[in-house]
Amino acid sequence: MISAVHYTDEITKVLHQQYQGSGKPLLYLLHGLNTDSNNYSKPADFEGIDKFKMDLNTLHPILTECRVTKSELELTLIQFANDISSEAHVEVMRNAKVGMKEYQLESLFLHHTYMYGGCRHCSYTCICATGDNSAVLHYGHAAAPNDKTLQEGDMALLDMGAEYHFYGSDITCSFPVNGTFNRDQSLIYNAVLRAHNAVISSMRPGVGWVNMHKLAEKTILESLNEGGILFGDIDAMIHERLGAIFMPHGLGHLLGIDTHDPGGYLQGAERSKEPGLKALRTTRELLEGMVITVEPGCYFIDALLVPAMENPKTSKYFNIQEINKFRGFGGVRIESDVYVTSSGCVNMTKCPREIQEIEAVMAGAPWPIPKTTIPSANGEI
Amino acid sequence: MISAVHYTDEITKVLHQQYQGSGKPLLYLLHGLNTDSNNYSKPADFEGIDKFKMDLNTLHPILTECRVTKSELELTLIQFANDISSEAHVEVMRNAKVGMKEYQLESLFLHHTYMYGGCRHCSYTCICATGDNSAVLHYGHAAAPNDKTLQEGDMALLDMGAEYHFYGSDITCSFPVNGTFNRDQSLIYNAVLRAHNAVISSMRPGVGWVNMHKLAEKTILESLNEGGILFGDIDAMIHERLGAIFMPHGLGHLLGIDTHDPGGYLQGAERSKEPGLKALRTTRELLEGMVITVEPGCYFIDALLVPAMENPKTSKYFNIQEINKFRGFGGVRIESDVYVTSSGCVNMTKCPREIQEIEAVMAGAPWPIPKTTIPSANGEI
Repeated sequence: MISAVHYTDEITKVLHQQYQGSGKPLLYLLHGLNTDSNNYSKPADFEGIDKFKMDLNTLHPILTECRVTKSELELTLIQFANDISSEAHVEVMRNAKVGMKEYQLESLFLHHTYMYGGCRHCSYTCICATGDNSAVLHYGHAAAPNDKTLQEGDMALLDMGAEYHFYGSDITCSFPVNGTFNRDQSLIYNAVLRAHNAVISSMRPGVGWVNMHKLAEKTILESLNEGGILFGDIDAMIHERLGAIFMPHGLGHLLGIDTHDPGGYLQGAERSKEPGLKALRTTRELLEGMVITVEPGCYFIDALLVPAMENPKTSKYFNIQEINKFRGFGGVRIESDVYVTSSGCVNMTKCPREIQEIEAVMAGAPWPIPKTTIPSANGEI
Repeated sequence: MISAVHYTDEITKVLHQQYQGSGKPLLYLLHGLNTDSNNYSKPADFEGIDKFKMDLNTLHPILTECRVTKSELELTLIQFANDISSEAHVEVMRNAKVGMKEYQLESLFLHHTYMYGGCRHCSYTCICATGDNSAVLHYGHAAAPNDKTLQEGDMALLDMGAEYHFYGSDITCSFPVNGTFNRDQSLIYNAVLRAHNAVISSMRPGVGWVNMHKLAEKTILESLNEGGILFGDIDAMIHERLGAIFMPHGLGHLLGIDTHDPGGYLQGAERSKEPGLKALRTTRELLEGMVITVEPGCYFIDALLVPAMENPKTSKYFNIQEINKFRGFGGVRIESDVYVTSSGCVNMTKCPREIQEIEAVMAGAPWPIPKTTIPSANGEI
C-alpha cells in the first residue's frame, strides 16, 4: 500500500522532514558484489546526498538473502512462466523439421508464450542450437543469431524460458530434429537424463550444491563408461576432473527476478578453483524455498577433448575410436527449474523428458500423454 | 574489403605509423545534434587521443547527409522489411477478433516477420492500440503494454514494422476489429486515406515537406467538413491551426537505419514553432533517393478538442453534437514508407488500404486481391 508520493527532487527535503533523530539521518544503500561479473552495484545517488550519513554494507546481504528463498506469490509467477514455457517447448518439438532454420524454432517459442501466456519477454536470449552449435554454451546472441539450417541427423538443444511479471523460467530441451533418437543420440541423452533425475531425487534442504554437481558428473561418466566411450575407474576420473571435459558449466543456479538470481555466494560460501566446479554460480547448501535450475549437460568440445585425450594423466580413459564418432555431435542439455520443499523438491518444469515421450509428442501425441498410451520399454501398452 | 586489422589498444600507435605528415595527425570525429532529442552525440574517445588534433564539426553533417538519400542496396533492405511487414499486417487483420488482447495482435505480427522473414527485431516497439487507446500516439511501451481487450465496435490502430539487417520499416494499418466499417469509422478512415493518397500523388523532388503536411491537414479538414463534424472556411481553419487538433504529430519522417533517420534539419532547414508543424521531424524539400514515411492521422483527443471547442476563435468551426459522438472513438492513422524517385515516388508498403480491400481481406479474401473479385462501389464485379 502506498502511503505517500513525492517528487524525486524533493527527496532530501522529505527525508529530513520525516527524520526524528539528531545529526544527519542514516541512509542504507545497496552496494554489493555481483559474484558472476565481479562488478559492484552502483549505490543510489541524488543531489543533496551529502546531507545524509551512508551505510553501504548492511543492506545488500540482507536484501539479497531475501531473494534466495521465494514466497508463495513468487512461486506462483515462476510456475506460470514454467507452465507456458513447457507448453511452448512442446509446440516447438511438434513443429521442428529438417530444413527449417534455428530461428524459426525461436519464433515458435516466442509466439506461443506471448500469444497464449501474455509473456512479452524471455528471461534471456533464446539459445536454439542444432548440430555442432549445441556444444556452444552461449549460442543465440547477436553474433550467432540462431541462423543455421536444421540437418538430418542433428540434435537440437533449445534453452528458452519466458518471463512473466519479471519472474523467469529457464528450460532446456534436447531432441533429434527428425523426431527419432538414433543409438548415439540415445546414449548421450540418457546419460544426461539419468544425471538430471538423480540430482532431483537427491535434492532436499541441507544438501550441498557441489555434491549435486559431482553426482551429475559421476552419473554421466558412468553412462559414458557403460556406453564404451570411456573406460576405467569412475572415482579416479572425477578426481582428474574428467567430468568438466564433458560438462564444463555448473549444474545450476538460483532463479527468480534474475535468470541468474543473486545470493549464490552469501553466508561464507566460496567459489571453487577446480574445472567445472569453478563455474558453479552457487556452492551453498539447499534451503527450503529456493528455486534452482538443474541443468546437467554432456558436450563434445574439441578444445577440451583434444588436450584431455593427449594428456598422459587422462588419455587412458578415452576410447579414441568411439569418441571420434562424436566429434561434431554437439551436446545435450536437460534443464528444469526445481523448487526445494521442506522434505525434498518439486520439478516446476513439465516437458517431455523420456525418449519415448519425446518421440511420441514429436509424432503428434497429446501432451501430457495419457498414461495408457505410453508403450513400456518392452513394447507393451 | 578489409585491408588491415589491429587491436583496439594499438589505435594510437598504428594511426601515428600510417601518418605521413608533420605535427599531430588530425582525427575527424562524429559530434552532432540530434534534432529530435536535442542531445549531442558523444565523439569517439580512447587512451592517447590527446596525441591527435581533433575536428568535431566536419564529419557529422557530411555523414548524415549521406544517410538522407538511399543507395540501391539500402532500398533493397527497406523493401524487404516492407514486404514481410505488409504480409504480417494482413495476417494480423485476418486473425483479429473481438475478445482478443491487443498483445496477441503484436505476437502474430512478430511471429510472421521472424518465422517467414528472419526479422529478429522490429524497428520500434509495436503500437497495438484499440478503441480509445488509438488516440494515444506512443502507446505500446512498458507502461502501456498493449494489454486491452478488443471490444465490439473498436477500431484498431496498429503501428508495427520489422527490421532486416538494421534497416527498418514503419507501417500503420487501421481497421475495425469486427471486420466491417460502420458509418463513423468509414468517415474518419476515408478522411485519412484521402490525405495519404493526396500526399503520395504530390510527392516528387523539390516539393517541400511542410506543404505536404498542410496538404494532409487540408484534405482531412475538408472531409470532416463534408461529414458534418466541422463547418466553415477550410483555409481559415488551417490558419487557426485546427489541423493540429486532429493531427498533432508530423506527417512523416526519414526512414533508414534509424526509424527516425537523421538529416531532417540539415542544409539550413528550420523547425517551425506552430502547432502540428513544430512536430515535423523534417521541413526539407524532397530529394530523389529519400525514403520518408507518409502517416497522416485523425484523432479525437479531449485534451486538444475541449480547449479548441471552448476557444472563442475556434469554437465556431465545431459541430458539437456531431463531434460528441466521436469522444472515445480514438483515432485512425495510415502510414506507408515512400521512396522519392526522379519524377515522383513509389509506395514501398503493400497493405490493403481501401475499405473494400480491408473488409475483403478480413473476410478471408487472398491478398493481393485478384482484380476481378473486387466489387466496385455500385456492387458490380
